[in-house]
Amino acid sequence: MKETIAINNLRTLACDMISNVKSGHPGIALGATPIYLAILKSMKSSAKHSNHILRDRFVLSAGHGSSMLYAGLHLLGYNITMDDLKKFRQMGSITTGHPEVNVCDGVDVSTGPLGQGVANAVGFAVAEKYMASNFNKPDCNLFDNYTFCLLGDGCLMEGIANEALSFAGTNKLNKLIFLYDFNAITIDGSISQTFNQNTIEVLKGYGFNVLEVENGNSVSEIEKAINKAKESDKPNFIIVNTLIGFGSPYEGQAKIHGNPLKEEGLKSLRENLKINTKPFEILPETKEYFDELKETKEKVFEDVVNKLKYYKKHYKKEYKQLLSFFENNSKVEEELENLVFDKDASTRNLSSIVLNHISKNHLNIIGGTADVSASTKAYINDGGNFGPNLYSGRNILYGVREHAMGAISNGIALYGGLRPFASTFFAFSDYMKNAVRMSALMNLPVLYIFSHDSIAVGEDGPTHQSVEQLVQFRAMPNINVFRPCNMEETKAGYLVSLTTQKPLILALSRQVLPYVQSTMQNAMKGGYIISKENMGELHSVLIATGSEVHLALDAQKVLFEKGYNVRVVSMPCMEIFDEQTDKYKNKVIPRNCVSRIAIEAGSELSWFKYVGLNGDTITVNSFGFSAREQDLYNHFNITVENIVNVTIKNIKKNKTKTLSIF
Amino acid sequence: MKETIAINNLRTLACDMISNVKSGHPGIALGATPIYLAILKSMKSSAKHSNHILRDRFVLSAGHGSSMLYAGLHLLGYNITMDDLKKFRQMGSITTGHPEVNVCDGVDVSTGPLGQGVANAVGFAVAEKYMASNFNKPDCNLFDNYTFCLLGDGCLMEGIANEALSFAGTNKLNKLIFLYDFNAITIDGSISQTFNQNTIEVLKGYGFNVLEVENGNSVSEIEKAINKAKESDKPNFIIVNTLIGFGSPYEGQAKIHGNPLKEEGLKSLRENLKINTKPFEILPETKEYFDELKETKEKVFEDVVNKLKYYKKHYKKEYKQLLSFFENNSKVEEELENLVFDKDASTRNLSSIVLNHISKNHLNIIGGTADVSASTKAYINDGGNFGPNLYSGRNILYGVREHAMGAISNGIALYGGLRPFASTFFAFSDYMKNAVRMSALMNLPVLYIFSHDSIAVGEDGPTHQSVEQLVQFRAMPNINVFRPCNMEETKAGYLVSLTTQKPLILALSRQVLPYVQSTMQNAMKGGYIISKENMGELHSVLIATGSEVHLALDAQKVLFEKGYNVRVVSMPCMEIFDEQTDKYKNKVIPRNCVSRIAIEAGSELSWFKYVGLNGDTITVNSFGFSAREQDLYNHFNITVENIVNVTIKNIKKNKTKTLSIF
Repeated sequence: MKETIAINNLRTLACDMISNVKSGHPGIALGATPIYLAILKSMKSSAKHSNHILRDRFVLSAGHGSSMLYAGLHLLGYNITMDDLKKFRQMGSITTGHPEVNVCDGVDVSTGPLGQGVANAVGFAVAEKYMASNFNKPDCNLFDNYTFCLLGDGCLMEGIANEALSFAGTNKLNKLIFLYDFNAITIDGSISQTFNQNTIEVLKGYGFNVLEVENGNSVSEIEKAINKAKESDKPNFIIVNTLIGFGSPYEGQAKIHGNPLKEEGLKSLRENLKINTKPFEILPETKEYFDELKETKEKVFEDVVNKLKYYKKHYKKEYKQLLSFFENNSKVEEELENLVFDKDASTRNLSSIVLNHISKNHLNIIGGTADVSASTKAYINDGGNFGPNLYSGRNILYGVREHAMGAISNGIALYGGLRPFASTFFAFSDYMKNAVRMSALMNLPVLYIFSHDSIAVGEDGPTHQSVEQLVQFRAMPNINVFRPCNMEETKAGYLVSLTTQKPLILALSRQVLPYVQSTMQNAMKGGYIISKENMGELHSVLIATGSEVHLALDAQKVLFEKGYNVRVVSMPCMEIFDEQTDKYKNKVIPRNCVSRIAIEAGSELSWFKYVGLNGDTITVNSFGFSAREQDLYNHFNITVENIVNVTIKNIKKNKTKTLSIF
Repeated sequence: MKETIAINNLRTLACDMISNVKSGHPGIALGATPIYLAILKSMKSSAKHSNHILRDRFVLSAGHGSSMLYAGLHLLGYNITMDDLKKFRQMGSITTGHPEVNVCDGVDVSTGPLGQGVANAVGFAVAEKYMASNFNKPDCNLFDNYTFCLLGDGCLMEGIANEALSFAGTNKLNKLIFLYDFNAITIDGSISQTFNQNTIEVLKGYGFNVLEVENGNSVSEIEKAINKAKESDKPNFIIVNTLIGFGSPYEGQAKIHGNPLKEEGLKSLRENLKINTKPFEILPETKEYFDELKETKEKVFEDVVNKLKYYKKHYKKEYKQLLSFFENNSKVEEELENLVFDKDASTRNLSSIVLNHISKNHLNIIGGTADVSASTKAYINDGGNFGPNLYSGRNILYGVREHAMGAISNGIALYGGLRPFASTFFAFSDYMKNAVRMSALMNLPVLYIFSHDSIAVGEDGPTHQSVEQLVQFRAMPNINVFRPCNMEETKAGYLVSLTTQKPLILALSRQVLPYVQSTMQNAMKGGYIISKENMGELHSVLIATGSEVHLALDAQKVLFEKGYNVRVVSMPCMEIFDEQTDKYKNKVIPRNCVSRIAIEAGSELSWFKYVGLNGDTITVNSFGFSAREQDLYNHFNITVENIVNVTIKNIKKNKTKTLSIF
């Protein structure tokens, strides 16, 4: 049968890719190929329209199965050449070790860290429901796609996957179809030792329609299960019994997971699979099979393309709105300009005002919190709650599932057109660190709204008080960290988030901050002079962020009185400040003024970059504790008095050129 | 009935504590008090022996229920005074906002971040099984304690809890008794909107014995369920139907979760509960009830105390070994001294040699990996695998559950006597960030073995390559981060870990590193001169860690040839270096040598502290990619050639005093 040859040829091709570069994971490529083929056959997707918004999505959550993915996409005519397959995992190649969405055609999402993909798939499904409920018409089911996700035991053991699955069940996301490559082997050995659970029962408990395929080598059985799944009103979980490393000498063994086959192994594989190919050879039967499949798929996809054309023609207004989802939000600046708030306020409340203001004109902003809407204020007041009874709801109730929230947001952003926000306490960003990292790696414009951003949380104590979180995200590549001190800086954070293709973190105060004057335009530079020195020689530069800016300003007044001429710089976003010209940066923090004091209720490691060895930092370098906010600030010496004292000492020290190196 | 009065008095007392300081969580304190009382009645625990190794443990995973906990412990005679109750959540008080293990008598574990406690409880149960299988005798069931854990909906939604529960089921940890305060309310609203799962089915699927208590106000029903649980051969999960904020005007509503009752609310509460107390008043019936309970408990506990005495008398050798578990490992240095390895090797392999070497004499070292033993080499070769058939196994197969692994390790360390290790790839430490933070907050000597510590991971690509992880942990308070370059530094990492009461991270290379000579004694200083400059003026100091040290040494040779007199400093652990005297630090990195070059395959933010604005860094500040190791090093310019060039430029720049501030 041609299909069997095609599958086995796909298997040898994937293994050739791996063995050729001596790097990769043959286990899944041999065991799960029939599942992947069944998915390809079931998906409405097209090589010609590989980014079409209405296509079915595929998440290879078990990202180490990349060789199989690339080989399949190559055979279906995606923009992946035989040469790309040969350069698997090499410098500059699009066929990276784990699939990368911005790098390789046909890849819907970057995967690799286990479990993330499961939650990304849930995000795709959330997006589909939201778009469908906003745009579909009685005579045109515009948004109607399925999301397929292939996962392994590794993904399913991860907490993030269980959070996402429980969320999907609660929200009845029935267009989700998970295919579980159940080979009963993990790297450390048999699954009975590490994962002896009744997965059917667990998934049913989460609210899933659970199906089982006995023979993981039968594409038709898997297709049958997928067709059944498409009729369900619950999300679907298909358990497919497979053999890791099928056909190889190490079939069913853990060591085939990540060890390339050598010449002997490849030979034996070809014998077992009864397929006599040379390395990278594609048999005529295989080519024929995939050409036919490709033709069928492209034909089916024409309907999808035509559906959008129909919609464009008959629903001009709605189509225009849909297009606006994809535009760069050039008008946001204008919308924000006249939003003024010049009273004392917590930045979490200012954020709420901005969010609600811009949400009105931008229906593509949706998001939610990990069960702390009342605290982080990340809630669209007239947006309704997303759920089985209201898929047009703009507030997603994530429950206490931070990690899944991050990765679901990634899925929503990847779907296209939508700008998701996700929110919790800053200390609990810890739970979602890897999901945030994946936002950064994929250039996804997810807005993370993290309130309760320092020891000022107070009585809830050290578990709820962030210390190292600012540095850890500043050290993360490709993400902007905004810690605003007032309305103008908060607006700047939103503006940057809505007009760039990368994630942004808003670190917001729980406590009310005294009003401080500045402009959004200045804040857009990342760092700027918020209060100039007097005429004459500049003695020192105080640099502060967020809740510490007003303290620096108060200290400046005292220092003026004492005859010290200092400047205050507000630095809401280091990443953006660093991108400014040297000229601008030198204007803000003059090269020749080596006395510099950084003030921030967080780790000092953020600051040596600006204050060097001659400057000083007033920061928090141990865990906080349970006490009132002001008691904590006093304990950590983040006070006007201390800023004044440290500054004077530093000015004197630098005058006498006594360098303190440690 | 006296018990009803006692419960209601406990409720008013807890609410008085909260209202008195206007901070805290009345919802759980009113809803779950009967559960807590049933636990207290069932636990073998003692105020007189509150740290006894053989006691039952209690984890308040819903840590916001702290007022209830403190009130109960106070009434049972623990070292918590009425004055402490009045200073709830205040500066310097032992009654912190969330329970803290090193701060308050009777608290077995610090909780607060949801879900962590569930996994900590599993860790306690792992420790009990391990200790029992090592020390128990046919005539003396020495280790035989139960672990009770009270959790809420918030905990159960968290991924970490689900990882831990699945692990507990797989490992048949039957002495675990979870009590689920099921009040069907989350902060964002009804549970049907956020958590609409069939928990009975899910927990059965995980392998639990699931019990249900209809009436959450019936202490006797809850006790009955606990007694049933004690007979089970599976871990136990008791679902107790409760009402959040019971008796208050906001009974059953989300807003009672974290909002203190005001005067009117307290009055209404007292009316509803039919208990007429003044603030903080303890009724005679209440006192009598708890005095009786205390007496019973202390009497029961005498058996436990006597059991240990019996063991001490009849099993002298074993008792001595048990004591040795609690000694400070003063002999470890000696044991490590003669362990020499002077060939090229990856530090993950060196770590494996050290781990296996010291494990021989220290039976209290146990641990495991998140399904990557073969890669991180954190495996005790003759230790056996922990599991239902071998609870004396020293290798714990965590499965792909990083977050639970960290928190289970915390539980093991908290149990007493044991020194757990936990291991995965450094990039995936992201998944367990908060658990590591809790290790640091609780001063727990968990050894984190994180291999694959940089872009040198190579072909697996950016998802598997750490960049910001070194900085993020260096910025975390109370944890040592060790990145060794050879055997001596690896040994130093182990030595510090085994002789201090705080967590330590070993960041280890996947790749083989050229052999480099040094001493363990020097490495114990955190940073030291690994290769001196020649006679004469010092031109520059090169500072490197781990896999970059050999590059710095090679660069030094070239620089010598070119007439530049440079020193190389190896800095395996910044935290320890920072603790040295100024004199020592100045000896290693001389104050007057401002030309300093830091070389590390990680974010630059770690380094400005040492190189200041005059120095330079050769670091990695964007995501890596999928390519061969050497291609990546070339791309990021971490090469001998570049080190030489940057150093020469920097020396020249500093000679001409051209400061580069940005």
